[in-house]
Amino acid sequence: MVAVNRQWCIARRPEGSASADDFEWRQTPVPDIAEGQALVRNLLLSIDPTNRPWMWEKDTYLPAQNLGQPMRGVCIGRVEQSANPKFPVGSHVSGLLGWQDYAVIDSQMRVNRLPDDPSIPLTMHFGLFGHIGIPAYFGVLDIGRAKAGDTLVVSGAAGAVGSLAGQIGKITGCRVIGIAGTADKCRWITETLGFDAAIDYRAESVAERLDALCPDGVDVYFDNVGGPMLETVLDRMKVHGRIALCGAISQYNHADVSDFEPGPRNLFLMVTKRLRMEGFLSSDYLPRAKEAIDALAGWYREGRIQYRVHVIDGLEQAPSALGMLFDGTNQGKLIIRIA
Amino acid sequence: MVAVNRQWCIARRPEGSASADDFEWRQTPVPDIAEGQALVRNLLLSIDPTNRPWMWEKDTYLPAQNLGQPMRGVCIGRVEQSANPKFPVGSHVSGLLGWQDYAVIDSQMRVNRLPDDPSIPLTMHFGLFGHIGIPAYFGVLDIGRAKAGDTLVVSGAAGAVGSLAGQIGKITGCRVIGIAGTADKCRWITETLGFDAAIDYRAESVAERLDALCPDGVDVYFDNVGGPMLETVLDRMKVHGRIALCGAISQYNHADVSDFEPGPRNLFLMVTKRLRMEGFLSSDYLPRAKEAIDALAGWYREGRIQYRVHVIDGLEQAPSALGMLFDGTNQGKLIIRIA
Repeated sequence: MVAVNRQWCIARRPEGSASADDFEWRQTPVPDIAEGQALVRNLLLSIDPTNRPWMWEKDTYLPAQNLGQPMRGVCIGRVEQSANPKFPVGSHVSGLLGWQDYAVIDSQMRVNRLPDDPSIPLTMHFGLFGHIGIPAYFGVLDIGRAKAGDTLVVSGAAGAVGSLAGQIGKITGCRVIGIAGTADKCRWITETLGFDAAIDYRAESVAERLDALCPDGVDVYFDNVGGPMLETVLDRMKVHGRIALCGAISQYNHADVSDFEPGPRNLFLMVTKRLRMEGFLSSDYLPRAKEAIDALAGWYREGRIQYRVHVIDGLEQAPSALGMLFDGTNQGKLIIRIA
Repeated sequence: MVAVNRQWCIARRPEGSASADDFEWRQTPVPDIAEGQALVRNLLLSIDPTNRPWMWEKDTYLPAQNLGQPMRGVCIGRVEQSANPKFPVGSHVSGLLGWQDYAVIDSQMRVNRLPDDPSIPLTMHFGLFGHIGIPAYFGVLDIGRAKAGDTLVVSGAAGAVGSLAGQIGKITGCRVIGIAGTADKCRWITETLGFDAAIDYRAESVAERLDALCPDGVDVYFDNVGGPMLETVLDRMKVHGRIALCGAISQYNHADVSDFEPGPRNLFLMVTKRLRMEGFLSSDYLPRAKEAIDALAGWYREGRIQYRVHVIDGLEQAPSALGMLFDGTNQGKLIIRIA
């Protein structure tokens, strides 16, 4: 047991990519708990693209974080002390527990108790049935309304959400084209995950490859990257196509939304082609989460979806891991093993 | 009766605003009709913002027009000769009959026979129960999903579609803010049409006025103008807001979509605020047109909606009338009285 609570706190707003210099490593006492609270030992920390906008000075879909506070992060932890019968000692919980060893929780916080299911290791569990699987599932099927026979294009296709989105598209009967950033990733999504085709956006012209791969156009675009690629895909959408906006990782290193690159010049195609574009967040789908979790768990047990995790040991590595997402050097869902 | 068929044909692709020099005035024989056809004398010609993109070299939602052909336009006409029992002599029809005195129609063309209802003059009929009223109705209620208590912002609010959209919003119980281009238009939409407030975008800061008028944000944006104003309104949308993209008149004088101004820099707000943006065309709603027409006719007879028409005499004036839409000098739905 660690005697102190190690924390990464936000030292300053990053300029461009976040680095360790933007955080302060702090060692504080392990907090005491009061009646109704529980002490959680964080075991795993999810590193996600959205962590970077969480460091903006302006609010995103969550309030901006103050400098000096422990960095916000999704964790899975184990209850070590409890004065709340909803969180018995030894149970596992997930929630926004932060970049730290210990967190104090209570019934007011949005913390989920995980089912006790030893058949699925915690690392696999992490995100697949939560903040990764839920947006992939509802983004493809609800926002994107993908159906058998549709052509589905996914950007960030080797990422945690993108790789699931494409596989859900395949299970639905779509033709799935993934856009990713290395030849290795392209090989993985086609050869291992079964995508119909992949485009290496760093090595190939996305426009030319989409023209060749989708001569009749695109029914559904599942967008994880934003930026100029959206303009390229908009040009190739079919009439009544749907664009599910999940994220915009290509722009997150800007200071905030007003500092992003300009939007697509061809947005008027939304009118002439009667397109629907919709943004969404995993949290809005929590009331329907069971639908996604049941489906994903079934497909996972049947071997129909793969969920690759990239585990890095040590809370110390969290800042550099965040940078990996933006370099594209991670291979699968990025997780810090804290303990 | 005119012995010749006078026509405005497209002489060249306009650079910027269209002018008479972009058209050729031609006098051709009145066409003969064959079995199954009818000869229509065009009486009224609708001049609409969308006419300008119809002159692009590239397709829009309709195929591009070739140089030399009569300009496409929505007309109401009277059948003068008929070899088709569906179109008896003396009946009135509307459809894409062109900038000319006469058109030949048959059962294959999308031409609507108008109901014989002398209680509504043709000029009033024109568009209100067709290509103007239908997008206003479904744009507000179906795409925008406006409901009582919502704050609805309409751009191009003194235009034909915009002025109806705002009034439909008021009937639905929305708080309606219109954005228009002169003090006169702003007065008209507030004092005569009953909008709750108006913003003169040429004289005022739209951002500052929206902040003052909608401190809690915007539920529905009915966009007729496109361009930078969309970015301004996006900044002020409420969570789960809806953006109904009806048109982009601010950009139509560009050569085509790829030549438009860049899109909104803050499009990522679609994700953080979970916004839905959707383009639509009147023609997609034809199967449900009766719903809109019945509602609009009822409201019109009850005096609950006003539909101002700006009638200009003479087919000769069609090119300059098109320019008026882009100068903003028309006062109401712009119609050329051909005969």
